[in-house]
Amino acid sequence: MLINCSAYQEGNKIADIPVPDISEHLAVPGRFVWVALRDPSHDELAVMQEEFGLHELAVEDAMRGNQRPKVEEYGDSLFAVVKTLEPEGDDYQVGEVDIFIGPNFVLSSRRNSNQDFMAVRARAEREPELLRLGPSFVLYTLLDTVVDRYFPLAEALEWELEKIEERIFIRGSQRRNIERLYALKSKVLVLRHAVAPLMEAVGKLYGGRVPAMFLGAEEYFRDVHDHLFRLNGTLDTIRDTINTAIQVNLSMTAIEESEVNKKLAAWAAIFATFTAFAGIWGMNFEHMPELNSVWGYPAALGLMIGVAGYMYWRFRKAGWL
Amino acid sequence: MLINCSAYQEGNKIADIPVPDISEHLAVPGRFVWVALRDPSHDELAVMQEEFGLHELAVEDAMRGNQRPKVEEYGDSLFAVVKTLEPEGDDYQVGEVDIFIGPNFVLSSRRNSNQDFMAVRARAEREPELLRLGPSFVLYTLLDTVVDRYFPLAEALEWELEKIEERIFIRGSQRRNIERLYALKSKVLVLRHAVAPLMEAVGKLYGGRVPAMFLGAEEYFRDVHDHLFRLNGTLDTIRDTINTAIQVNLSMTAIEESEVNKKLAAWAAIFATFTAFAGIWGMNFEHMPELNSVWGYPAALGLMIGVAGYMYWRFRKAGWL
Amino acid sequence: MLINCSAYQEGNKIADIPVPDISEHLAVPGRFVWVALRDPSHDELAVMQEEFGLHELAVEDAMRGNQRPKVEEYGDSLFAVVKTLEPEGDDYQVGEVDIFIGPNFVLSSRRNSNQDFMAVRARAEREPELLRLGPSFVLYTLLDTVVDRYFPLAEALEWELEKIEERIFIRGSQRRNIERLYALKSKVLVLRHAVAPLMEAVGKLYGGRVPAMFLGAEEYFRDVHDHLFRLNGTLDTIRDTINTAIQVNLSMTAIEESEVNKKLAAWAAIFATFTAFAGIWGMNFEHMPELNSVWGYPAALGLMIGVAGYMYWRFRKAGWL
Amino acid sequence: MLINCSAYQEGNKIADIPVPDISEHLAVPGRFVWVALRDPSHDELAVMQEEFGLHELAVEDAMRGNQRPKVEEYGDSLFAVVKTLEPEGDDYQVGEVDIFIGPNFVLSSRRNSNQDFMAVRARAEREPELLRLGPSFVLYTLLDTVVDRYFPLAEALEWELEKIEERIFIRGSQRRNIERLYALKSKVLVLRHAVAPLMEAVGKLYGGRVPAMFLGAEEYFRDVHDHLFRLNGTLDTIRDTINTAIQVNLSMTAIEESEVNKKLAAWAAIFATFTAFAGIWGMNFEHMPELNSVWGYPAALGLMIGVAGYMYWRFRKAGWL
Amino acid sequence: MLINCSAYQEGNKIADIPVPDISEHLAVPGRFVWVALRDPSHDELAVMQEEFGLHELAVEDAMRGNQRPKVEEYGDSLFAVVKTLEPEGDDYQVGEVDIFIGPNFVLSSRRNSNQDFMAVRARAEREPELLRLGPSFVLYTLLDTVVDRYFPLAEALEWELEKIEERIFIRGSQRRNIERLYALKSKVLVLRHAVAPLMEAVGKLYGGRVPAMFLGAEEYFRDVHDHLFRLNGTLDTIRDTINTAIQVNLSMTAIEESEVNKKLAAWAAIFATFTAFAGIWGMNFEHMPELNSVWGYPAALGLMIGVAGYMYWRFRKAGWL
Repeated sequence: MLINCSAYQEGNKIADIPVPDISEHLAVPGRFVWVALRDPSHDELAVMQEEFGLHELAVEDAMRGNQRPKVEEYGDSLFAVVKTLEPEGDDYQVGEVDIFIGPNFVLSSRRNSNQDFMAVRARAEREPELLRLGPSFVLYTLLDTVVDRYFPLAEALEWELEKIEERIFIRGSQRRNIERLYALKSKVLVLRHAVAPLMEAVGKLYGGRVPAMFLGAEEYFRDVHDHLFRLNGTLDTIRDTINTAIQVNLSMTAIEESEVNKKLAAWAAIFATFTAFAGIWGMNFEHMPELNSVWGYPAALGLMIGVAGYMYWRFRKAGWL
Repeated sequence: MLINCSAYQEGNKIADIPVPDISEHLAVPGRFVWVALRDPSHDELAVMQEEFGLHELAVEDAMRGNQRPKVEEYGDSLFAVVKTLEPEGDDYQVGEVDIFIGPNFVLSSRRNSNQDFMAVRARAEREPELLRLGPSFVLYTLLDTVVDRYFPLAEALEWELEKIEERIFIRGSQRRNIERLYALKSKVLVLRHAVAPLMEAVGKLYGGRVPAMFLGAEEYFRDVHDHLFRLNGTLDTIRDTINTAIQVNLSMTAIEESEVNKKLAAWAAIFATFTAFAGIWGMNFEHMPELNSVWGYPAALGLMIGVAGYMYWRFRKAGWL
Repeated sequence: MLINCSAYQEGNKIADIPVPDISEHLAVPGRFVWVALRDPSHDELAVMQEEFGLHELAVEDAMRGNQRPKVEEYGDSLFAVVKTLEPEGDDYQVGEVDIFIGPNFVLSSRRNSNQDFMAVRARAEREPELLRLGPSFVLYTLLDTVVDRYFPLAEALEWELEKIEERIFIRGSQRRNIERLYALKSKVLVLRHAVAPLMEAVGKLYGGRVPAMFLGAEEYFRDVHDHLFRLNGTLDTIRDTINTAIQVNLSMTAIEESEVNKKLAAWAAIFATFTAFAGIWGMNFEHMPELNSVWGYPAALGLMIGVAGYMYWRFRKAGWL
Repeated sequence: MLINCSAYQEGNKIADIPVPDISEHLAVPGRFVWVALRDPSHDELAVMQEEFGLHELAVEDAMRGNQRPKVEEYGDSLFAVVKTLEPEGDDYQVGEVDIFIGPNFVLSSRRNSNQDFMAVRARAEREPELLRLGPSFVLYTLLDTVVDRYFPLAEALEWELEKIEERIFIRGSQRRNIERLYALKSKVLVLRHAVAPLMEAVGKLYGGRVPAMFLGAEEYFRDVHDHLFRLNGTLDTIRDTINTAIQVNLSMTAIEESEVNKKLAAWAAIFATFTAFAGIWGMNFEHMPELNSVWGYPAALGLMIGVAGYMYWRFRKAGWL
Repeated sequence: MLINCSAYQEGNKIADIPVPDISEHLAVPGRFVWVALRDPSHDELAVMQEEFGLHELAVEDAMRGNQRPKVEEYGDSLFAVVKTLEPEGDDYQVGEVDIFIGPNFVLSSRRNSNQDFMAVRARAEREPELLRLGPSFVLYTLLDTVVDRYFPLAEALEWELEKIEERIFIRGSQRRNIERLYALKSKVLVLRHAVAPLMEAVGKLYGGRVPAMFLGAEEYFRDVHDHLFRLNGTLDTIRDTINTAIQVNLSMTAIEESEVNKKLAAWAAIFATFTAFAGIWGMNFEHMPELNSVWGYPAALGLMIGVAGYMYWRFRKAGWL
């Protein structure tokens, strides 16, 4: 579906233009065309391919979707893929934005994503002095917007990890902790797959061999790269901490089990003495003088309780009870 | 066994030709020969070596089979090895395709594989404008076909992992989970050994120092490389997740055991009180007044059941039962 | 909040100057201006941006804070971010110092940190022959000061690890150990995030392609880099040791549990023999000749104690008790 | 001990020559000398050092032995160290071959190894057209021979791993499995120490900056490198699988223990009910009407067996028995 | 403390000279001065700094000590730090040697170390043809001596690991094993911190961009590097093996515990049958005909022993006892 199709001259929007006129506008020096698509059909992309002269392989990738984040040069144009992530229940809905950039055009095509870029375009149009920098600046604002939307997701993961950490040494919460740690790790992996390859790709847009189109905008792309680097660092820390937390959780399970075992052993010992004493006085020997004594029974009970009490005290002192 | 042997001029097939005529056709400018072998005998390869002037070491590799995926330059020709994988019960049948590429010939030799490349050749012959690009384009289509066949395998592994994950927190499924995780990891390793070295090898066919023959086709090989990169990322994620799942499975085993232990301890305690009380009133002291009371027995039973009930309630509240 | 604003000529302080005069002083050859801010407001930074001609993206970073440590070139000026850490209870208070360096100015802005750099400035002013080197030397002293403050933190972590290690093989301390190891690991991660990226960034200030401004001061930055390298090595060792200690702690838990289990098994066996013997002589068969013997009871008791004693001795010898 | 000392001209063997004549032959253009030593004494090496003008440090290495595999250039000659491995009981006997290569000589010296290179020399002498390539070809054949002897060792390790894997999920085999896995890992490490450094070293003999002597033979060394790369990949897989298998083995131990525990708990519960019931009817209350009934005993037995049977059925259904 | 201060001309020692004359001797072409200090005071170093024109930062490092091993260039001189290790009880005493090298001087300063370099100097003075190579050769001999002293330490660690490995599958040695493995790992880390950074640093003294002073001595430094590389490999193997051994030790703990558990379960079952039977015949029902039989008691005992014996046999067969 076509969302927008406008022509810009010297940073100012001239008009919304119909698709068939695109090639006409591309021919005018100092003018560039910015088109936005959403879940485009095969035919819509085919039209764009012709108007802008896009490379067949890039169009195929955009058609098929499900690409990894990347930035590829095709001659003097460029094809970028970024991922959009929206929380959906306990998981993410993963969408994709494919961006074609040429010296005088920008074509963005988003799939499976509810995040639009209206605000990006509106803000860009209010700043003609920057928009004058042309498609490379548009690419920067698009990337910047997408990357900025990753931050709250990463913070949510950090916050979730902290909540788990608060419960990690609490007795009896191991099962729930491990379940939440596992779910958290899955989400970290998804976010990392959006961030890490993009970081690597954006790194090629500044420093070293930069495509000519991006000279002058290098500092902006370095800024995006820096944000991605920071996100990546955060995700690495979360991942590292999750791994430790899983190990610690296992340790806590083992420690708690050994505590339960000690308790069990202590009570078993206490009851076993009761049973042993009772068994002895329950034997049917004829000559057991204590059985005939009036004080036998209370004395026996007293002895049993005394021994049990002593054992209880000893176990308590040893920390088993 | 010889499958095909055809000569092409300007992208169009001229004729199926007999093997002894190959060198004749190679001498014609603008012509190239495409030969396909299957499980070739030593003699068949020897003939090909002579006709195409293949390097002894490459032929030896093709003869012995069981090579790792690679792309090697020999002078102005090139030797590529790729792996084919076909699901076979709970494992893969691993086959191999050896491809010799020269400026005017393609020789593919497949071993231990049921996947043919008929469709590849048929499609290539329907697109003479691409086939005109010559052997490098044929290599691209062969690689692309092989790599495309890896995707459903990787997806099957992902799907299997998801099925295991659904059961990972279910009580009593640890033994089955660990068995399936281990089998899955083996399959991931096999697929990775087909993908990772090939990714590295294909990376040498674009960017940097590219063999002259491949200039112009670089974007196609970058596309294959990109697919392999994506596959590799998927496999890394699966591997990482399997490792975590194995740890989580161990944790679940420990957690379940501790739950069982608590249950055991609770019931043991309840029964132990029964036994202790019964033991006491089973003692043979003469002076145990409660024994003579008419209400003694029901009162004793009541007390025992009462204490047991109270303990049951306490253990229940503590989550042990 | 403005802390300081002074102009220096040939390494000597001329005067504290008002902010609006900054640009005037910048115009004088051989003169440089050194400004220090603390938790600056948006407006204060905006003024500085105008006076010094700072790059918009760098100012934005300084405004937002929470950057990772880095050193970025913007044309002929430079933007550096370093972290300050102050122990706060069982955690660190993480602050940030943003430093803008140009050929004739230094602007440092610190946030969320109680560590001032008064002493740094005072010492620098006492050494005009070094201060004559200009802003690059000021950057060196600032970095050096921040990095020197990391060392006691790293040493405190090492010391804490040693204290945990002393208790790692002590019975019954597993729960406390694992809690402390986990807390320690968190702190190591925080410190590492201050050190590792800074090390990488400072590495760019000497050797290879050095910004012109820093030629001549390279050996100083290499020294800072070397300190960071050493810190990083220390942190890696701590991390490695923590990981091993966590594993060892788990092993100790398992070993102790198995020792408890053996003890439990041994005592259970001893009591079980008591109960079994008592049960036998508690049976109600009419013809049990030993029951009628006068020596039956003491003999039975003797037998029971004898067997129990023998078992106790055997278990003791086997190391179970 | 001197094994062989021969001179070759244009690929053909001229004669076995006495050691003192070596320098004479070296002076003849187009001639090269090939010497093989075994467990050489200090004096023998000293003679060789003089005849061939070997570098003192290389000779020292050859004298001391126990070097890591490497290829070092000394001026226009080269010193290579490779490891030989021979299965010896459950371990390897590790030997060493030191090879000195110059423009017109090859000196191989083997230590602590029963593998000779007679066959290598014999085959080389039958192929004068290759031997004409001179010392670099001799080095290739020596390396190729040594590396080919690694393959059966790696396959034996793979086969052993498979045998362990067959038993990994079998109850009660954990102790034996862990012992075998540990022994296997040791052997993998030994083989890896022969393979990995050699792979790195041989990589320097083709591509990039190749010593002049080896130009023309590059494809042969690439072939050896490729074999080593394959071996290395195999060893990495084995190592990775061993690590997983060790973890799985631990999981299986825990799972089996929890199964035993459940069984124990179930039987304990069943017996405990028996004991509890028997205890109740073993009490000495006077007024226990059921005791006087003729059907009391069989009914009690019936009840006890019934309850036990019901519990057995329930535990069975729950998979505990 | 000054240990030595001598001047050398053309490789021959001229005289021991007083410190104040150093600068005089430095002015003579072809002459170099070699000074050795031990635990130098601040003042001694200050004198040296002046005599040799040492860089302030290097002197500061030497003063403070506790540096990581490194080799740093300062203009045309060089500052090297190496660690000395001496076994001290179950740990190492870590010392440090700081070496300043210039075109015509060597200054070595050792701290906290009992290892002197008298023998090194004596041997060097006996070989004037090598000493003629000047300070770079002295540096080589110092490094070589320090590195050679690491080998017996690494071998001791290997030997200790082997002793632990011999006991790793022996029942009941887990606690001792884990303690020794942990202590061993600490020592490996200390040795690694001496070896790994030095290896990296020495790598810069040959190949690639070598400081002018070291041209000609490259092969000697490569030899030192090779030794360090070998040491590093040995330490990596030990570390890897320790990690596996820790895991195996945990597995052995779990396996032994499950063996103990099975034994416990088996004996508990046997005793439980005794108790259950005895309980039944201890009930007070009036009509229990077997109680009145003369053979009742022996038959009951026989039955109980028979059942117990049968169970014992079954458990034995199942490997539980």
